[in-house]
Amino acid sequence: MPTYTAPVKDLRFVLTDVLAIQNYDNLPGFADVSEDIVNAVLEESGKFMQEVVQPLNQVGDREGCTWTDGAVKTPTGFKAAYQQYCEAGWGSLTADPDYGGQGLPHVLGFALAEMMNAANIAFAMYPGLSHGAYEAIHKHGTDEQKQLYLPKLVSGDWTGTMNLTEPHCGTDLGLMRTKAEPQEDGTYRITGTKIFISAGEHDMSENIIHLVLAKIPGGPEGIKGVSLFIVPKFLVNADGSLGERNALGCGSIEEKMGIHGNSTCVMNYDGATGYLIGDAHRGMRAMFTMMNAARLGVGIQGLGVAEAAYQNAVTYAKDRLQGRALKGAEAPEKPADPIIVHPDVRRMLMNIRCFTEGARALALWTGLLIDFAAGHPDPEERQAAEDLVALLTPMIKSYLTDTGYEAATTAQQCYGGHGYVREWGMEQFVRDARITMIYEGANGIQALDLVGRKLPTGMGRLLRRFFHPVSQFIEDNMADPVIGKTCVMPLAKAFARFQATTAQVAEAGLKDPNEAGAASSDYLRMFALVAMAYVWARMAKVAAERLADGGDGNGDGIDRAFLENKLKTAQYFMDRVLPDTAALGQKIQAGAASMMALDEAAF
Amino acid sequence: MPTYTAPVKDLRFVLTDVLAIQNYDNLPGFADVSEDIVNAVLEESGKFMQEVVQPLNQVGDREGCTWTDGAVKTPTGFKAAYQQYCEAGWGSLTADPDYGGQGLPHVLGFALAEMMNAANIAFAMYPGLSHGAYEAIHKHGTDEQKQLYLPKLVSGDWTGTMNLTEPHCGTDLGLMRTKAEPQEDGTYRITGTKIFISAGEHDMSENIIHLVLAKIPGGPEGIKGVSLFIVPKFLVNADGSLGERNALGCGSIEEKMGIHGNSTCVMNYDGATGYLIGDAHRGMRAMFTMMNAARLGVGIQGLGVAEAAYQNAVTYAKDRLQGRALKGAEAPEKPADPIIVHPDVRRMLMNIRCFTEGARALALWTGLLIDFAAGHPDPEERQAAEDLVALLTPMIKSYLTDTGYEAATTAQQCYGGHGYVREWGMEQFVRDARITMIYEGANGIQALDLVGRKLPTGMGRLLRRFFHPVSQFIEDNMADPVIGKTCVMPLAKAFARFQATTAQVAEAGLKDPNEAGAASSDYLRMFALVAMAYVWARMAKVAAERLADGGDGNGDGIDRAFLENKLKTAQYFMDRVLPDTAALGQKIQAGAASMMALDEAAF
Repeated sequence: MPTYTAPVKDLRFVLTDVLAIQNYDNLPGFADVSEDIVNAVLEESGKFMQEVVQPLNQVGDREGCTWTDGAVKTPTGFKAAYQQYCEAGWGSLTADPDYGGQGLPHVLGFALAEMMNAANIAFAMYPGLSHGAYEAIHKHGTDEQKQLYLPKLVSGDWTGTMNLTEPHCGTDLGLMRTKAEPQEDGTYRITGTKIFISAGEHDMSENIIHLVLAKIPGGPEGIKGVSLFIVPKFLVNADGSLGERNALGCGSIEEKMGIHGNSTCVMNYDGATGYLIGDAHRGMRAMFTMMNAARLGVGIQGLGVAEAAYQNAVTYAKDRLQGRALKGAEAPEKPADPIIVHPDVRRMLMNIRCFTEGARALALWTGLLIDFAAGHPDPEERQAAEDLVALLTPMIKSYLTDTGYEAATTAQQCYGGHGYVREWGMEQFVRDARITMIYEGANGIQALDLVGRKLPTGMGRLLRRFFHPVSQFIEDNMADPVIGKTCVMPLAKAFARFQATTAQVAEAGLKDPNEAGAASSDYLRMFALVAMAYVWARMAKVAAERLADGGDGNGDGIDRAFLENKLKTAQYFMDRVLPDTAALGQKIQAGAASMMALDEAAF
Repeated sequence: MPTYTAPVKDLRFVLTDVLAIQNYDNLPGFADVSEDIVNAVLEESGKFMQEVVQPLNQVGDREGCTWTDGAVKTPTGFKAAYQQYCEAGWGSLTADPDYGGQGLPHVLGFALAEMMNAANIAFAMYPGLSHGAYEAIHKHGTDEQKQLYLPKLVSGDWTGTMNLTEPHCGTDLGLMRTKAEPQEDGTYRITGTKIFISAGEHDMSENIIHLVLAKIPGGPEGIKGVSLFIVPKFLVNADGSLGERNALGCGSIEEKMGIHGNSTCVMNYDGATGYLIGDAHRGMRAMFTMMNAARLGVGIQGLGVAEAAYQNAVTYAKDRLQGRALKGAEAPEKPADPIIVHPDVRRMLMNIRCFTEGARALALWTGLLIDFAAGHPDPEERQAAEDLVALLTPMIKSYLTDTGYEAATTAQQCYGGHGYVREWGMEQFVRDARITMIYEGANGIQALDLVGRKLPTGMGRLLRRFFHPVSQFIEDNMADPVIGKTCVMPLAKAFARFQATTAQVAEAGLKDPNEAGAASSDYLRMFALVAMAYVWARMAKVAAERLADGGDGNGDGIDRAFLENKLKTAQYFMDRVLPDTAALGQKIQAGAASMMALDEAAF
């Protein structure tokens, strides 16, 4: 059975050494975050995920959720673990203190999310969706709505959902048929069917707050006529107590490839009472608040599952005796050497490792930017951070999930035949990871968002927010004796290639939108690799500096070996992953012609 | 529910137009293969796979095999379909007429295997393993053994298995513990436990002929002390009738990620009677006869599942209405355009298509080389073909399965959320395809075989068998007005890069075997891409020539559109896939240093 150890030391290295969150006590919530608090949060939440949430991962997969007459039973242990999760306050960590939250930085919430998803994706989705509902109501709800719904969402007594997809529309929500008829009392009657509603029905909380997209009859056609509604499972009285059951129900749950522990529901709304949130016909704007948070959350799922799969692959590679090292036996006292001696096994492990450590830095950097965007005293800095988050979101969602799935597959490969057998648990990582490339906007949609929406914004303003610090870093560190040649040079080369490709994509895309579409996925990947190279170079710089200062010594458990391994892993990334930018550049340069050459009938 | 249409036209194009098998009536079996026979075999076997075998694919996944008291029940319909398969003669197509086979070319057997695996991998494994057992006995058995076992294996009345793996040893068979004690009557008593035995026990045939690797006590240590034995489930009397039940049994079956319709057995041998096949202690030699055939067969599984997944992704992409084409509505009469209008959907479909069509040509070329190796009148040609097959085998196994899995994943992606739901069947393709990268030697082992064994053989003799025709082709066609610039130039560039990388790997590997190991997987991929570019260029040349001759007209159903699509798809491969060789070259050049830099304890 797989195990998981929360990577507390590495999280701390990124938070403290790389991002230096201790320097930002001008941001709300940060002043309260002493090093002790950071340590306590990481240690304690890590322990909780390891000891309570992770052991339910295989149980959840085997049992799955069961549907009976509209009610959904979650797997054994999920409900009790969720209660412990809420009681420990893990769900309210970053929420607004006005509604019972602890007001800690989002960047810490990102660290917690990684560990929870590494432990158990299906479980993590329940509070994850609540968090999205919280965000939408917090940003777009009236004061009354906030007072009524947020405290219980923050405490976890209630959970939340997002209802977008219908049988005939997913990506193209303008085709939506669910309707919301205005009533005299100011409420709406919601009627329609939604599918793929994660955590749509379950037995873990006393109420479920559905956020539902629907069309008010007579409104504009298409996506501009979509509004967002709060549609609680149980209506909520003015005093916050539960009222009658709303006219909605779960018609069935899907049988899926993975994440069996999470209920994926068909939700039927039969004239259910709904409350408009935000402006009529402006539902997509509010939905995107949830969606952007959710997209980053899904990216972190990819990272989490990769980390868990990696740890188990390492254990197996050290335990499994098979063959001898190519240069001669390394464990002559044993009947064979552990397979970790083989370069190709190292290749597999290093591929995952340089992904997880880099992706962790990328994700936490984004988390910190969210804190900047939400609370930096300087409006310029807020805007800059918001821009950068908008730019990074589709990339984090896509790259971390594509590569998370690859990583899970690679970790499974390390096990040989045992990786294919259910009891070893490696194939569950693959099945669970697979959904992350699909939901919250399939990865191809993320690429289109990047190229079609994010690049043109403000004539490339978002991208310049990324270009500037990278250029600056390259300029400042090109001559560095430790990382100049090994890290900064390869970064500079890939960055130059990326800039040239950007110019080409922007120009070709203006003339023919299919050119932008044809470039999009490869362009997103190229961006991701450059961003990874940037965070790897930053980590290498910090590691080199700390090594020059003696290495260990400040009592955080980070020693010279840890720092040297960072430098070595950075080198591996530059050697063995970053070169993909060369191929991507060539592919994009080929343009749309051969991609679009076949008639539809030829397929 | 997924459907499948046998790609008969494309198979015929490769067999007749590209490989020109009609020109080889100097080879045994080929004289009998008129164009009519080829057509009949493809049409009829294709129809059988579509109509009988494919409808059992989802059934097999849902029901799986069930084990009760040592007996295994296959899913509903498998036994009846297997009987039809045998009665139609599909199992005996390429077998030796001396034992009831039809003696048709192996290249035709490869075409049939693709269709059977596209229809149902789990089903295809039963006759696939029989074929491996047939090969081993045919090549290494005594006349008596051949007379006793082959006719029933050829007819399909009996099936076969390969027993290699034990709980503590898979790749490293030298660690094997199963023992074979010689008896006075010349037989051996086989005792031990084997795991992961595909089709080890089932209800489809009256007997199962297990080929079992075991050690004769007192023999050499390690892999040099391994012998191969025939161990039938029911002992066979001298007249071929079934005798008593042998002392062996299936202890349990594995619960797996996929291929649920195939039984993966723990086999216990409790002093079972076995018959030595080939020489004592030379079992690996005989086993490799089976293994090489099986490795090519597994590669073809990757191709087959990719083709099936592709066809369904195409159907969905044409049916699913979502959004509008970037350049304006293409189906304004509908509420939205079919998603096939989007470049990124095209990218996904074209990636799979250029893989399946190229891999088909590569696989059938290898099949033809097997016919050359087996029966070419010129011993020089036989040796050349055998060399090339030996070189191509690890590449076909690895590349076709890695990319087959990627293709299944990509096809699933085209479905969005529906791809993750079991009833649509796309996720089964992914789960089934996953095993192909693992069994018959995990893909990393294939890469080591290529770099460590195949490259050094005869000081690079095997590789020169590949280099020569490719060089020649480039020289002959560089100036071709249609394919010179579009196909031959990119091929030449990638080929030059591959030659340079080969020299580098060979040199570095001589100094330090870890360098060869570190390069192996990337090197195999680079080889595969160059080989794919070569077959694509050959197909493009044939298509261009036939177009110049008018295109259609010989009544084989191939028209101008088909030929033009070949040229366009070739172009896509050169534009969008072949550039990966640039990245691979750079990665390999980086060497082993950063891959091996971390101490084992650092993981």
